[in-house]
Amino acid sequence: MKEKEIRLAHGGGGQLTNELIHQVILPALGGGQDPKRLSDSATVAWPDQPAGGGKVVFTTDSFVVWPLEFPGADIGKLAVCGTLNDLAVSGAHPAAMSMALVLEEGLSIELLARVLASAGKEALQAGVRILTGDTKVVERRGEPGLVINTTGLGYPMPRAKLGFDRLEEGDRVLLSGPLGQHGLAVMIRRKGLSIASTLQSDCANLQPLAAELVSKLGPAVKWMRDPTRGGLAATLAELSDATGRSIEIAQQAMPVDPAALSAAEFLGLDLLSVANEGKLVAVVKAEASAQAVKILRQFPIARQAADIGQIGPVGELPLVEMLTRAGGRRIVQMPYGEELPRIC
Amino acid sequence: MKEKEIRLAHGGGGQLTNELIHQVILPALGGGQDPKRLSDSATVAWPDQPAGGGKVVFTTDSFVVWPLEFPGADIGKLAVCGTLNDLAVSGAHPAAMSMALVLEEGLSIELLARVLASAGKEALQAGVRILTGDTKVVERRGEPGLVINTTGLGYPMPRAKLGFDRLEEGDRVLLSGPLGQHGLAVMIRRKGLSIASTLQSDCANLQPLAAELVSKLGPAVKWMRDPTRGGLAATLAELSDATGRSIEIAQQAMPVDPAALSAAEFLGLDLLSVANEGKLVAVVKAEASAQAVKILRQFPIARQAADIGQIGPVGELPLVEMLTRAGGRRIVQMPYGEELPRIC
Repeated sequence: MKEKEIRLAHGGGGQLTNELIHQVILPALGGGQDPKRLSDSATVAWPDQPAGGGKVVFTTDSFVVWPLEFPGADIGKLAVCGTLNDLAVSGAHPAAMSMALVLEEGLSIELLARVLASAGKEALQAGVRILTGDTKVVERRGEPGLVINTTGLGYPMPRAKLGFDRLEEGDRVLLSGPLGQHGLAVMIRRKGLSIASTLQSDCANLQPLAAELVSKLGPAVKWMRDPTRGGLAATLAELSDATGRSIEIAQQAMPVDPAALSAAEFLGLDLLSVANEGKLVAVVKAEASAQAVKILRQFPIARQAADIGQIGPVGELPLVEMLTRAGGRRIVQMPYGEELPRIC
Repeated sequence: MKEKEIRLAHGGGGQLTNELIHQVILPALGGGQDPKRLSDSATVAWPDQPAGGGKVVFTTDSFVVWPLEFPGADIGKLAVCGTLNDLAVSGAHPAAMSMALVLEEGLSIELLARVLASAGKEALQAGVRILTGDTKVVERRGEPGLVINTTGLGYPMPRAKLGFDRLEEGDRVLLSGPLGQHGLAVMIRRKGLSIASTLQSDCANLQPLAAELVSKLGPAVKWMRDPTRGGLAATLAELSDATGRSIEIAQQAMPVDPAALSAAEFLGLDLLSVANEGKLVAVVKAEASAQAVKILRQFPIARQAADIGQIGPVGELPLVEMLTRAGGRRIVQMPYGEELPRIC
């Protein structure tokens, strides 16, 4: 590309759009597409095995994180992992992904290529192809940004039997690692703070963890979720709301990243409400909890996995509560609404 | 909703996000979703008939049109039709759709509800459900806008056999109606011009047209496309490039909307390069052309459908040419890149 920056004309659907797609986007994504065969759609062959046959799992997310690169990851990796993770916690293997870009005029093409290469690498590692896409350009209105939408198709994992309606009193709540790393790493980078320099986003693909849990434990795994925006607090509040059950977690049992903890303290934030992008919350039958923790700990990103609490009875006003280290009880509420946008 | 405008906190993944989703977005889309069952993904039952079995057609588009409402349509209707149309020209019936919203702080919630209701109505009419979604909020940086990504899943129409590699010399090129209405209607509204007040966007769902053509004519329909950004010029240039074949169209044969023609003249634009959002280009076997035109003309949005040209031989430097009304020949080139962004 002669140009160093995105121009409005790159979005016009003409020669410049073609150049951008063929010289920057496709090479970065590394899909090996035949440029002549690019179309407005892709056709996905669907596995014919009884488990997946007849079902398509479908998920979408738009990523608006700012800055586009941050310690530990970038918007490209995040966009691929985010959708892989939504499939994973739905008990689905990824089959195909789409990627739609909204570029702002002035965006550095080198930066664009870098974050797309990061997306392509992540997709390749996960064995999922980015099969169809779209590129739009909007006018510059500040520091030039980028929105990436990824939509994923998956087929059900053969042994998956997930649903919040399967929860029973006594089921255990597992967490795959310490909270807050993604949200805090992004905030620190955005604010230009020099504290907690070792803190990295936990952005990661949870497919291997979810697949291994489901494949080994089958229906003993009852529900999974990745606690992104709103953090673990929002995840558990939603679960309690959907099931009408109280949930109790123990602060003592929760894995901690000291860098995230000190960053949260410095910024005055509650680790329970901060976004994560590489953590799995799973509800499993009590008898399967120890084995589930063992399975999770085999993965480097889940070395600190732990059983952090349990599902309670159905009640009229079900609460999520945390037993604090000091021996008290704290009600964990659905966060009201974070004032800091563009965290994912 | 108490609030009249989107706040950053509506994007935080907490209570305010929930309120927005349950009180504004879902009611407007009219999907009748069970709010307790909302999840990060949806599962789509896949038809088991031999035609569709084993194949999923997958397409994505982000819509950034500005202004959000314009004569004849709005961003909501456009986002649903755009994806229905990409499925249609791929020879696929729609099975499910996702919708991901990126809202700007300050966006009027009433306006948001209006364009989403328009999206919901269009989806309902097309018999497709919006099954999964996402909502993000970004900071205000000017007049508050909205980006909508829609991703569609479809299954192949039983008799569809489409592909540019099926084209032969002598095949006919059909166009379902006059060019330029969408792009010009948006530009006129954006520039606040009072000319050509009768001009309306042609934004429409092309599924019924494509399905009827394919169902009646089967493999005699060889290729379809909707000429959006870059207009008919980009569509035919891409087709010529992909096939290595020259293409010849006759200006005399092309349907015309006088309001679009005068608007294009006023704005100094070439109708061939302006975006359409409700037009179908189809390549059919010569013997099927008359019947195909008749089929198309049954639909109110394609009353002016016409056979406008033909596919030529394979050549080393294949050209798209238009025989002008004056009897000359004009080379139709891939537009370089429009300077006007946010047309779709």
